[in-house]
This record gives sequence, C-alpha cells and structure tokens, in this order.
Amino acid sequence: MGNSFGKIFRITTYGESHGKGIGVVIDGCPAGITIDELFIRAELDRRRPGQSKITTQRNETDECVILSGVFEGKSTGTPICISIANQDQKSKDYSHIADKFRPSHADYTYHKKYGVRDYRGGGRSSARETAARVAAGAIAKMALREWGTTVQAYVSKVGNISARPYTELDLSATEDNIVRCPDMQVADKMIDLIDEVRKDGDTVGGTVTGVIKGAPAGLGEPVFDRFHAVLGQAMLSINAAKGFEYGSGFLGTTMRGSEHNDEFIVSDDKVQTKTNYSGGVQGGITNGMDINFNVAFKPVATIMKPQKSINAELEETIVSGKGRHDPCVLPRAVPIVEAMAAIVTLDFYLRNQSTKLGAIST
Amino acid sequence: MGNSFGKIFRITTYGESHGKGIGVVIDGCPAGITIDELFIRAELDRRRPGQSKITTQRNETDECVILSGVFEGKSTGTPICISIANQDQKSKDYSHIADKFRPSHADYTYHKKYGVRDYRGGGRSSARETAARVAAGAIAKMALREWGTTVQAYVSKVGNISARPYTELDLSATEDNIVRCPDMQVADKMIDLIDEVRKDGDTVGGTVTGVIKGAPAGLGEPVFDRFHAVLGQAMLSINAAKGFEYGSGFLGTTMRGSEHNDEFIVSDDKVQTKTNYSGGVQGGITNGMDINFNVAFKPVATIMKPQKSINAELEETIVSGKGRHDPCVLPRAVPIVEAMAAIVTLDFYLRNQSTKLGAIST
Amino acid sequence: MGNSFGKIFRITTYGESHGKGIGVVIDGCPAGITIDELFIRAELDRRRPGQSKITTQRNETDECVILSGVFEGKSTGTPICISIANQDQKSKDYSHIADKFRPSHADYTYHKKYGVRDYRGGGRSSARETAARVAAGAIAKMALREWGTTVQAYVSKVGNISARPYTELDLSATEDNIVRCPDMQVADKMIDLIDEVRKDGDTVGGTVTGVIKGAPAGLGEPVFDRFHAVLGQAMLSINAAKGFEYGSGFLGTTMRGSEHNDEFIVSDDKVQTKTNYSGGVQGGITNGMDINFNVAFKPVATIMKPQKSINAELEETIVSGKGRHDPCVLPRAVPIVEAMAAIVTLDFYLRNQSTKLGAIST
Amino acid sequence: MGNSFGKIFRITTYGESHGKGIGVVIDGCPAGITIDELFIRAELDRRRPGQSKITTQRNETDECVILSGVFEGKSTGTPICISIANQDQKSKDYSHIADKFRPSHADYTYHKKYGVRDYRGGGRSSARETAARVAAGAIAKMALREWGTTVQAYVSKVGNISARPYTELDLSATEDNIVRCPDMQVADKMIDLIDEVRKDGDTVGGTVTGVIKGAPAGLGEPVFDRFHAVLGQAMLSINAAKGFEYGSGFLGTTMRGSEHNDEFIVSDDKVQTKTNYSGGVQGGITNGMDINFNVAFKPVATIMKPQKSINAELEETIVSGKGRHDPCVLPRAVPIVEAMAAIVTLDFYLRNQSTKLGAIST
Repeated sequence: MGNSFGKIFRITTYGESHGKGIGVVIDGCPAGITIDELFIRAELDRRRPGQSKITTQRNETDECVILSGVFEGKSTGTPICISIANQDQKSKDYSHIADKFRPSHADYTYHKKYGVRDYRGGGRSSARETAARVAAGAIAKMALREWGTTVQAYVSKVGNISARPYTELDLSATEDNIVRCPDMQVADKMIDLIDEVRKDGDTVGGTVTGVIKGAPAGLGEPVFDRFHAVLGQAMLSINAAKGFEYGSGFLGTTMRGSEHNDEFIVSDDKVQTKTNYSGGVQGGITNGMDINFNVAFKPVATIMKPQKSINAELEETIVSGKGRHDPCVLPRAVPIVEAMAAIVTLDFYLRNQSTKLGAIST
Repeated sequence: MGNSFGKIFRITTYGESHGKGIGVVIDGCPAGITIDELFIRAELDRRRPGQSKITTQRNETDECVILSGVFEGKSTGTPICISIANQDQKSKDYSHIADKFRPSHADYTYHKKYGVRDYRGGGRSSARETAARVAAGAIAKMALREWGTTVQAYVSKVGNISARPYTELDLSATEDNIVRCPDMQVADKMIDLIDEVRKDGDTVGGTVTGVIKGAPAGLGEPVFDRFHAVLGQAMLSINAAKGFEYGSGFLGTTMRGSEHNDEFIVSDDKVQTKTNYSGGVQGGITNGMDINFNVAFKPVATIMKPQKSINAELEETIVSGKGRHDPCVLPRAVPIVEAMAAIVTLDFYLRNQSTKLGAIST
Repeated sequence: MGNSFGKIFRITTYGESHGKGIGVVIDGCPAGITIDELFIRAELDRRRPGQSKITTQRNETDECVILSGVFEGKSTGTPICISIANQDQKSKDYSHIADKFRPSHADYTYHKKYGVRDYRGGGRSSARETAARVAAGAIAKMALREWGTTVQAYVSKVGNISARPYTELDLSATEDNIVRCPDMQVADKMIDLIDEVRKDGDTVGGTVTGVIKGAPAGLGEPVFDRFHAVLGQAMLSINAAKGFEYGSGFLGTTMRGSEHNDEFIVSDDKVQTKTNYSGGVQGGITNGMDINFNVAFKPVATIMKPQKSINAELEETIVSGKGRHDPCVLPRAVPIVEAMAAIVTLDFYLRNQSTKLGAIST
Repeated sequence: MGNSFGKIFRITTYGESHGKGIGVVIDGCPAGITIDELFIRAELDRRRPGQSKITTQRNETDECVILSGVFEGKSTGTPICISIANQDQKSKDYSHIADKFRPSHADYTYHKKYGVRDYRGGGRSSARETAARVAAGAIAKMALREWGTTVQAYVSKVGNISARPYTELDLSATEDNIVRCPDMQVADKMIDLIDEVRKDGDTVGGTVTGVIKGAPAGLGEPVFDRFHAVLGQAMLSINAAKGFEYGSGFLGTTMRGSEHNDEFIVSDDKVQTKTNYSGGVQGGITNGMDINFNVAFKPVATIMKPQKSINAELEETIVSGKGRHDPCVLPRAVPIVEAMAAIVTLDFYLRNQSTKLGAIST
C-alpha cells in the first residue's frame, strides 16, 4: 500500500530512520545485467550525510549488502534485496519530540493515520528511506547502460540563484563542486547562500533539473501512465518535493502554440525536433529527444530556531531543533532524482517490450 | 498497460476519437452510493465542445449510457460501465494527416511505439478520451459527497493574465463566465485574450487551480503513493499538462524554512495550521486543511497556420490546421481536473479503510 | 477489485445478466495482431445458450461489437472494448426470487457483502459474464496463433462417465458432438446421462480437460505467479468450478518419486521428457511439453425441483426452479476454459519478454 | 514479476537457498496489531528441516529478525521486513549439479527462462523460500486473531493412506505426532510408510487439508478474485503442489444438484447451511461456514537413486541424489498451507472494508 513503485522493474522499500535497518527488494530486474557493487556504494556516497560543509554533519556511511538475486556478478532475474543497516540509532535524541508535532513534518499526519508511530528521527517519513531508492536506482542505471541511456541531474536553483539552461552546461562537471551545480559561475554563490542560511539556523529550497539522454522513441504508455506523469509521481514522491514540470513547464503556459510547437526535422538520418519545448515527450510517449524536467524542493522543515506547535494532547508547546540537519536538501537530492528517473525509464523500457507484434521475440 | 488508474476505485477507459465510441469501466465503487445520471450529464456538458465562443465550435453532445453496476438508482459494488457513442465520425476530415506527423502532437510517437495507429482526430491520444474520465469523476464526486468532501477547480491563469489566490475568491462563481474564472476582474480579459488568439489562428496556455475541501486527515500512503504524488500523476496524465505543484509549489523554493513552516494551532476544537504552504499535505498525507494545487497547460498544438513537418517516409511536408479546434484548452480542462482530483481523493479514502486496527469493521 | 485479470494482457469485464449489456475491455494487447470478428462470433456461439438439446433452451445469440482498439483489421495497442447487448431482459421472470436466497447460489453472499444486489438472473454472479471472457479469449487465441501456440479443451467426465486420456484422443473431433467430448465411445453415454438428468429436473457435474500445445519453455514466473498457479486461479474463477489439477494432479499423490519424475531426453533436436507427469510445468515454469490440466465443475445449482431455503427476513421459504436452465454446465464450459487458458498463456508470453538481457529488443 | 502476493496485505519474498539470506517485506499490515516474535519463531520451527526422523536431517534453525514496521510491540502500518540469514551455505555440495538438469526439478526451466541461475540447492526455486511465507503468515494469523478467525491445516493423506473427514477430527491434536495428522488411527501408518519410502531412497506424495473457521460472510471478490480462486493460486504456488479443490471438490462432480445444494437454515440466530458442499464459499464469496480445502502434493523430486538426465550441453548424464532430503514434503507443508491461507483470508478481510457505504468509516 504505497511502498512499491514500478510495474515490471518494481521496487519495494522498507525501514525506519532509527530501526534496525532499511533496504529495498527489486522484483523484475532482467537476468544477465552485470552488477557492480562498488558503483552502488559510490551512488550511496553521493547521498550520504556528512559529505560536505553544506550538508548535515552526521557522519554516517551507508554499508549495503546484496542479499539475493545476484550470482557470480550477474543478476539472475530473481528478487534483488539490498539491505542497509542503521548505524546511528541513538533513540534518546528524539525523546523531546515523542509527543510533539513538528511544524511541516509528517508527525501529525502519521499520528492521525496510524494511531501509533515510530517518532525517532521521523521514522518511516525520514528521508533516510531514499538511500534504498538510490541503491535500486544504481541497479537501474547499470541496466540502462546496456542500451546507452543515461540519467543525470544537478542543482539548478537555490533560493533565487539560478543556473543557466542545461543545454548550455557540461553536466559531467556536476560532481566538481559540493552543491552539485555544473554552472561554475553560480555554484559558489549557491554554496555561500546555503552556508549563510545554515549559520542563521534556517533552511532554503530550490530546484533540481534532470536530463535523460539516449532514451529511444516509444517509451511511456497512454493514457494514465504517460512517461511524464509517472516520472512526475516518482519525483513528487521524494521528500520535500513541491512541484514538477517537464520541457517548457510552467513557463510554457505563457507561449503561443505557434512558438511552442516543436518542428520535426530529419538530422543525422534521425527524426529530431528543432526546438524541444516538449521535453522529449509527446502525448506521453518519448520521441527520442532529451527528456528534461525540474523538481521543486521546499526549504527543509527542521530548523534550529524554536517554533510554536501543539502536542498529542492538543496543548501548545515549543519545538526546538536539535542535532545536525541539512540547511538545504538540494545537493543530496541530486542522486535521488537520478535514481527515481532511472527506475522510471527502465520500467518503461521493459514495459515497451510487449507493445507490438514486431518487437516480441519468440 | 496504462489505461487504468486507481487502486481500489479503479477506472479503465477505452476508445478513440473517431471510433465507434468511448467509455469507462469503474471497478471498486462501493455499493449503496446514490447515482444521479443527470449529474453525470451535467458534468459532461461542462467538458463538451461547442459550449461557448472560446471553445471549439464542433457541436457535439456526449450522450452517456450506464450499462452496468447500478440497480434501482444505487451502485451495487459491481463494475459500472459508462458508454459514450461517437457521433462526429467524419473520417474524411483526417485523410490529410494520415501519414503526416503534426508538430507537438502524438502522431510520431504513436507511430514509433505501435507501428499502426488510428490517425483520425488523434485516435486514442485525442482529448476526447477525457470525457470518460469526467463521467467516472462524477461517480467519485457523488461518493465523496457522502462524507462532505468537495472538489473544485477554476482557470487561474491564461497566458500572462492571473487570477488572485483562491482564498480570496468565491469558487461558487466559477461557472458564471465562459472561461471558468471566479475572479471577475480578470475573467473578461482572459476571454478577450483567447478570442484574439483564436482570430490569429493561434492558441494559448495557462493554469488551472484545484481545491479539495473537507477531506479528512490521514489520506495518502507513504512512500511512493503520497497524496500529492498520485494527484500529480493524475493531473500530468491530462492532455496538454506540462507541470504540477501543490501548496507553495515552485514559489516555495525561494522561501526560508522559518517562513515556510506551517504552525499548528487548535481552532474550533480542530487541529489546523496558521498558514497552509503545505497545501493540506504533509509527508504525503493529508492534514485536514484545504488541499490546493496548480496544473500548467501548454498552448494547444493544433493551430490554423501552416507548419513545416515530416511524414512517415521522413520527407518534408506542410501541415495545415483544418476544422474547428480549441484556441485554449483551459475552460474545458476545469471539469477534467476536478474529475481526476475526485477520483484520487476517493481512492485514497477507500484505501485508508484498512490502515489501522481501530478503523477496521468486523 | 476483482473484475480484472492479467498483468500485461489485462481484461476487465462488466455487466449483469439482465442489465443493459455486458462486455470486456482488454488493455495490453500488442499492436499489429490481425483481428477476425467472425472468429470472435464463432467462439461466442460455442458458449451461447440454446445451442443443443442438452443446454438451456433460452435462444439467445450474443451479438458483439468491437468499440475500440482495432483499426483497419489490426489491433492498435490501445484498449479493445467488446460490447455485448443483453437481449433477454425479461425482469419479471425473477420477481419470485427477489428476496429469496437460492441454495448454493451467490444470492446470500452478495446480499451480505453489498447490501444491495441486482437479483435478476443472478445479476453479476450469473455465468452470462463469461461471454465477455470468451470474446477476450478469442483475441488471445488470435495473438497466440502468431507463435504457433494452441489451446484446446473438451469434456472429459460427466458424472461417473470418463473419457480416455487426452493423449489417446483426436482433439480436433471435440466439436463433432454436442457434449464436446472427442472420445466417441463415451460421448453418447454422456449425452444420454445429461438428458436423463434434465428430465428429472436435476443437474450433474463433471470435468473439463485443457491442453495447451506449442507453448515455449520459460513461461510462468516464480514464486507466486507460477504458470499453473495463475492458470489455477483462472480456472477456479469460472462459475461452478470446484477444483483444479495439472499433470499428474491428485492421482500423482499416490506415486513414488522414482515413478513420477520425468526423465529428460533429447528427441528431434529438442529437449523433451519421456513421461509428462509434470504437465508441462516444472517449478512453475513451462518446459516446452504439452501443458495439460483438469477442472472440476459441480452440478448446476438451479434445479427444477422445489427446495427449502430462507429469505432476506431469515424466514423459511420454498424456492422453485423456473424457466430454462442447463442440466449440465460442461459442454458450454469448454470454450470458457479455452478462453481463460489462452488469456493466461498470452499474458505469460508477454511478461516473459523482459526476463533476460538477451531477449530484450532495443 | 511474480514475487509478490496480495492486494492490500501484500508480501514480497526474496532470497535463494544458498545465498546470504531470505526474507519477506509485508506492505499493508494494519497498524496496531500486537506482534509476538516468539510466535513467528514457533511457526518457523514447524517448517524447519531436521525436526523429526521423517523430514530431512539437515539441522537448520531459522533465526528471523524483524528489521522494520514494528515499534514497541505493535505494527505501525509501515512495511514489516523479516530477514532470515542462511546458515547452511556449503556451496560445494552442489557442484555436481551445476550444469545438470535434475528430473522434475526447476533446473531446466530456470536455465531456459533466465540464461543464468544460482544452481546451489535449487536457488530461488528451493522450498527454502517458503520460510519467508511462514513468517508473513504468522503476522497474518496474529491480525486474524483480532477478529476470531483461525486457520488450521493437517496431513490428510500420504500415498494411499487417508485420514477421516475433518469434521470427525480434533484439529487441536495435529501437532501431537510428527506427521501432523490428527487422525490417530492412521498417523502411525503414515509415519511408517514415509520411513519405509525413505529407506528405499524414494519419496511419496499426499494431501494437506486446510480449514478456516470464524471467517465472516462477505469475503472474496467477484469475478476473478473469488475467494477460492485466489486461495487456489496461493496453494498451487507452494512447491510440489499439483492440485487444489474446495468443499466437495472433484468428488462433487459425480453428484446431482439436488444432493449437492446446501440448504439454508437459521440456527443459533445465524444463517447456516445444513450441509457444506460449498466449502464455505458461494459465488466466490464466503458465507460464514467453515472454509475447507485440499491441496495435492507430488512425491519430492529429489530421490537417492541414480537417474538418467541431460546437461546444459544436451548430453546424457546421470544425476545422483546426495545429501539429506525430505522423503515426504507433507509434514513440513502444513505450516506453509496455513500461512498462505491466513494471508489470503486477511487480505480479503481488508479488501472488504471498502465494499459498501455502510461499512466505510469516516
């Protein structure tokens, strides 16, 4: 009921922030994919806390173990379980919020929905769950490599500081700075802003841009499972996400059809479009052009300043931020956005195998 | 594979623009809901072509028939099939596009995906399919009424003309003008803009805002099926949608956490928040406040001006708009947005019935 | 919630016995399959009432209409809706059972489950619903033909009269007699038994045997969706089914492992097994041998004799059979068994397209 | 793709016989259920190898750990992951079958389906996977207890030795002997038969009977998800299962309708039936009577005698049984049958919460 995602390449995540561990079971991974455990670890390292001065200072490495589904370095077609133990289980840290509802967190809503909840570190609602997605995304990326499809993301805006459009940037430079913005002219400003906000005990939001290159035409399913609609669900399911747009997005609403329509051309013996306001998706199905999209993230809800709130008895109370938290979720959100985009793309790739008589193998 | 939506209240639509008919099968509608056929027809009339000077002039009424699942005016718990015959089947109109790929339409992507396609009027990719969703949404609205939950939408922006925030408007006035904007100060300007664009043979985009009132706290499922993530998929699945945001949305990315956090208060013996940047959803689960969101729609791809393109043989060609088309999709999108929002809300309502021991009836 | 079946080739049926009509929506049919409407009608004729002296004498032809998903004789990959109008809507016939619970029918259980029910002719629980399955099964058979896979069934037992094993029979003779048993030595005895039972106002049960030939090795999914487990669900979902077995089935329980194991051999350059106690399925996955199975059907619950029962007020009452009913469900069950087996086989065929790297097309 | 089961209470199992471990993730368990870890261990002990002289002599205890979803002894509504490490990972034992296809095992079919396979101990196709089901079934049983529903199973037949009907037995005596047959008159004979077969290096099959008591009327969904159809899939998904029947089953095929129909009566102020040939299910929906069913299990394929077979190069070879294996799967199948029956019943219980307006809580 909500902890699984995907139709063929289907992931199910489990685990709470301060329970024994978290993890993911992947069903539907094709057999024969080369599985590189070091790559999974490298991806987890991009998401882990304590990686730089602008992320939370909790120093936690995510040690993952593949429990099943891989034999002699290849996927076997059976479920791949990747388990990540929780090292930082200091439950005492959280007694001060056991019966309080932190503003703009999920404390109140989980309380109303379930009656009971593991309040330690946000329990299931903690962004720690996304480590499992990053591990699954690493598997998806390894499969997509087989067909030359890549997924990249970067921080395109922090507060009011924006990077240039992705078409003007070298995305291979994303990991060159700690804010994961390949626009070197603004990356330092973003870092300074986050650092300043952190010193204030406050937080700031922004956007991550994702780009999928090398996806074939034909991915996505009408009517409800349009490529961009399922991609949108995937992105909006990431903690702190507030919005999603693809191609021309919200800005496209101000254009005329005559400007916005993407003219088809044949270039390099390939069907292409002159412009790409469609964001690589037309009628919900990919057209072979780059798929590009933006995800809006709110400022993190945990701040270091005292805030008024209520408790489970509906009495007024004060919530004070304690511990070590992210002043800005954006840099660590980049590998999560990539992971979910890879999962969506691979799933549609596999779903497309049975679409037409000519593509079906006997 | 993509034509169904929902987990318990599950709809499956079928039909092409110029085939024999379209329709929807609803599985999982609770038994005992009073079904008012006139209300379904009224909702379909809000979506139908030819309703005003700013929509397409094709005059088509959508006559729906309930084939199953309703007995003596009540839902029986068995599948409800609502069938809508296609009256306007003039296939000849479309011979001029049989082998051409219209820019920013789904012609090319369907061609690549399926090999064959019903090119008449866009076939399955036509927005005509949304009539079936509106019929299903009417059923969902009738069920939601039983628990006092309402779903409303309106046009909040056309081109660069924006209405005030929904909290300053009387949403009951939405149907008072043909553009479906309850902000009377801007509605006429929107109408004028659309009319002007129409005379140019061009089209224009905009946004629809949706508001769900009276939904209880606790709807939505962690982690992937967050209320706003599934709502986002639902909205992005509507033809011409380019973006989705809820609560503070993209604008929220520029705020600090200390501003953006919604303070909990007890008011009228009810837990509420002072502000509602959360858009009624925290951690993916509703908190009892209004749920509000925006959907971006691009300018309609069919324009009356000749455009360069290619055909199935990859030769250059010219596509000319013929017939009667919408200069702006927004006014007719309003009932579709409401329908999808009602379907999502009802489905989460039903999914929430088995969440905790205390809520389960024996 | 229960009215859909299949993962990729997914059917959703709708309709009640005496409502406006019944039908099926098929999602996930590959594009490019040649669709022969006459074949669909021929299959429906094998199931229809009034076809011989040993079936119900209600003379009803099932006129089907394809509303969508087929263009110029080919499937387009979009949902195929097949609609069948109800001609025999004489609701008056059923007033005598409106508040009575017929023994071993679904009247009482639907009443308890839903509160309201369409009591006319059993409503949704009527075997009339299976006409929609037969139509969908005809589509599945046409797709399976593309890869040389055939599905056949026949009546293998009526009461205590049994046919010889299928390996000793010519299954192409199944349609040569009205009981659909290709063992000519016993077919007449079966017909006589049914006729005798009919004259008594009583009913009799039996078994249908199904045989799937030409299915490749590799169909079926571990662990829950084993080929035979999903086939079992499909068969048990047919009205009046009481049991399912495949290969050696219940009889195999009395054998020793050393007798029961199927020795692998290479014959005609093909891996085969000397015996086929496995019924073509090992570990839930097909091995390329014939898949064979039996389905047990109970004696029809509607009998012409008066029976004691209770009504909705829990008072004692008498139920008397009226109208025209089947003395034995078996001959008409044959095309239903074939239809469901074809749907299961095709769905596994399509699911298998994404199983391993080598089978995935780019 | 096949490793998940259930719609609301949904289990996903992972793991191979000789990998690092196996386990299960349960999504959709209601919050607030008291979770007793000792009970889970006790259930696992009923399934574990080495428990008596008539099971395999591998002495392996299944140590399970709950990694998530339980807080302070209660389920929290979030996914429950139960992990079981593999202790017996002596891979060397299996080198002799690495490239051989054991008769009536899944070696050949996995090879054809996936190209690669973990051949050690059968890998994913090993019955070891069922330990994860037993753990999940223990959770389901604890939930069902809340509403007074119990699930019991026992060995009703070994070879040709049959127990009396369940209505004549005291099912609480099932655990009193090592064959798990509560009919004391035949239990010893069954044990002797298994022991004799074991000494022969051979194996023998039989049947397990299951009985669900205290389930309310109304469980099960028309049309495809009939209670008995989904229960049938669940049972047929157990390793070595060859058939399923409920109520009168295959024997019912020989009866007349007038004998077979279950007369409704009111007894103890409750609607009951005089006989129960329906097996507690009518039209696919439970009627409140005992639900009873039989599952046929074949003789275990692993025998100690040398057998002819082929290898991956399609050459003739000899397969010899090595190690310690079960001469009869029946006694250890009993807790697996119970687990799957509990999972099915609980899932239908939860699915039924949204069936009718009157049952829906606000």
